[in-house]
Parts: sequence; C-alpha cells; structure tokens
Amino acid sequence: MAQRQGRYRLRRKTVLASGAFDLLHYGHLAFLQEAKKAGGKNAKLIVLVARDKTVEARKGKRPVVPEDQRRALIEALKPVDEAILGFEDMNYEAVITKLKPDVIAVGYDQLDIKRSVEEIVRRKGLKIKVYEAKKFSADEIDSSSKIKKRVIELESGNT
Amino acid sequence: MAQRQGRYRLRRKTVLASGAFDLLHYGHLAFLQEAKKAGGKNAKLIVLVARDKTVEARKGKRPVVPEDQRRALIEALKPVDEAILGFEDMNYEAVITKLKPDVIAVGYDQLDIKRSVEEIVRRKGLKIKVYEAKKFSADEIDSSSKIKKRVIELESGNT
Repeated sequence: MAQRQGRYRLRRKTVLASGAFDLLHYGHLAFLQEAKKAGGKNAKLIVLVARDKTVEARKGKRPVVPEDQRRALIEALKPVDEAILGFEDMNYEAVITKLKPDVIAVGYDQLDIKRSVEEIVRRKGLKIKVYEAKKFSADEIDSSSKIKKRVIELESGNT
Repeated sequence: MAQRQGRYRLRRKTVLASGAFDLLHYGHLAFLQEAKKAGGKNAKLIVLVARDKTVEARKGKRPVVPEDQRRALIEALKPVDEAILGFEDMNYEAVITKLKPDVIAVGYDQLDIKRSVEEIVRRKGLKIKVYEAKKFSADEIDSSSKIKKRVIELESGNT
C-alpha cells in the first residue's frame, strides 16, 4: 500500500469493495470496475472476499465455490489490485482500521453493509467516502441466484 | 497484433486457447495461465470463446451464461490479452489462418480439439506448437459440470 506523494503525483486512493463472489459473473465484474472508478485515476482496488463460514452464517448456505478459489479468481481480474479473505467474524470495523481505505464501494444489493459502514464512519469521525454502485440492466446475469435458477432450469429440462 | 522485431527484442509469440467458459471457475483461470506460459516471455494470449449456438450444437444444451458476458469476463482476466467470439460454425481452420498463432493450447478435456488442430497443422504444413495443459488437482472445482452438480445439491438440500 505504498502511497507516493510529490509535486506531479496525486496520492493514489484506495478503494475497498467486498462480497462473496460465488459463481463469478458479469455483474461482479461491472461492480468492481465501477468501484475502482469511484477512487479516481490510478486508484488501488482491494477486494475483501467473504469466508465460507461467513457466507454460511449470513445466507444459511455454504457457497458453491470454496473461499480460496473465489479469492484467486477475484484477484485475477484486471481491475483488482489485491483480493484478501475476510475475517471469520466479518468485523468491518477491524477491516477499515487495518486497510484505511479512502472509499468503500458497496453494491446496490449490499445496503446492510452500507448501513454498518456509514455507522462506523460517523462514530469514528473517519474521512471515508461510501459509494453505492448502480444496478445493471435486467438482461444481464447479475446475481448468483439467477445463475443457480438457470442451472436448475437448464439441467432439469435436458436430463 | 503488432509484433516488434529488433536487436534486443524477441518476437512476441501469440498463443491461442479456446473454450465455452460457462460458469467461470478456477480451472479456467489455471488453464489460461498455463496457456500463456506456453508462449514464453511476453506472450500474447488470445482466447476464442465459443458462441451459444456452437455450445448448444456440441453439448446439446445452451450455456447458462450468454456469449457476450462469457467473452467479457474472459477478457477481464489478467493473463488474457484479447477474447473474441468464435465463428458460428466453429471452423478451426479459418481461425488459425486468421489469427496465425505460434502456439495453440488445449485443455486436458479438449482432446477432440487437439486432434482437429493437429490434423490441420500437419495437412497445411504449419509451424504451430500444440500444447496440452495439465489436469488440476481433484480438490479443485475444475469443471462447469461439477459446479452445476454442487448447485443442485446445495439448493435441494436447503429449500
């Protein structure tokens, strides 16, 4: 997280985004591209990938793809500078203290995360911008639930 | 596809890989990383993404994710320089003539493509290396069929 400062060089902003990113799809990519853009030119995008246990606790179901593979795929995406696994208890305050982001980007479907982050930012008097990403067009496969639904439809229609 | 030649610059090799890449997973990424490596230093990796119609004709089922989104996700991966949609009739000879790759990388599960490519290379007397990628560890989610199976298991166990 080296940040160079100089007469001709603006400080590089760090953007933090997070998610489970199970069954990687175009909606994830569009979200991460938008998140990076929210940090301005040369922004660094760090992505926090939720642990298997966190996903299970939040959604009542294990993710299809194990955490190490979800993390590796996210880090292999061009807009992503670094992908790290979350803390097992999904403690956002600790994450923010450790990574010191300038911007936290949340997806249109992450309003619970948005509320927690805004509460932490206000309570601790931090200078962090909370950016809410847009929803994509309805034609796109933009959620893992849609993918799961389509898998089941296609498989049951053909076997 | 600019190729610079000079006293201190080796010609950059072009590697061609192809696939459907439906439900993007870690096995796809590992294959593409290995494919790029097969072209040596600074290789350019072009990925041919199969059309929806081609997938349907070959596998009897439409892919879960539409072709444009499969292509965009593949092109967003760090090892990939360019991702293009296949020709509708999946004519490999036309692809090879057009893209002039130095190396064609095939997955361990693409032996039919390997055979066709080798036949074209032999018949036309081309200087193309055909590289067969290794299979990954059995622990990894390395095929779309495994993902589909897991989706159905997890969904049916929890609803």
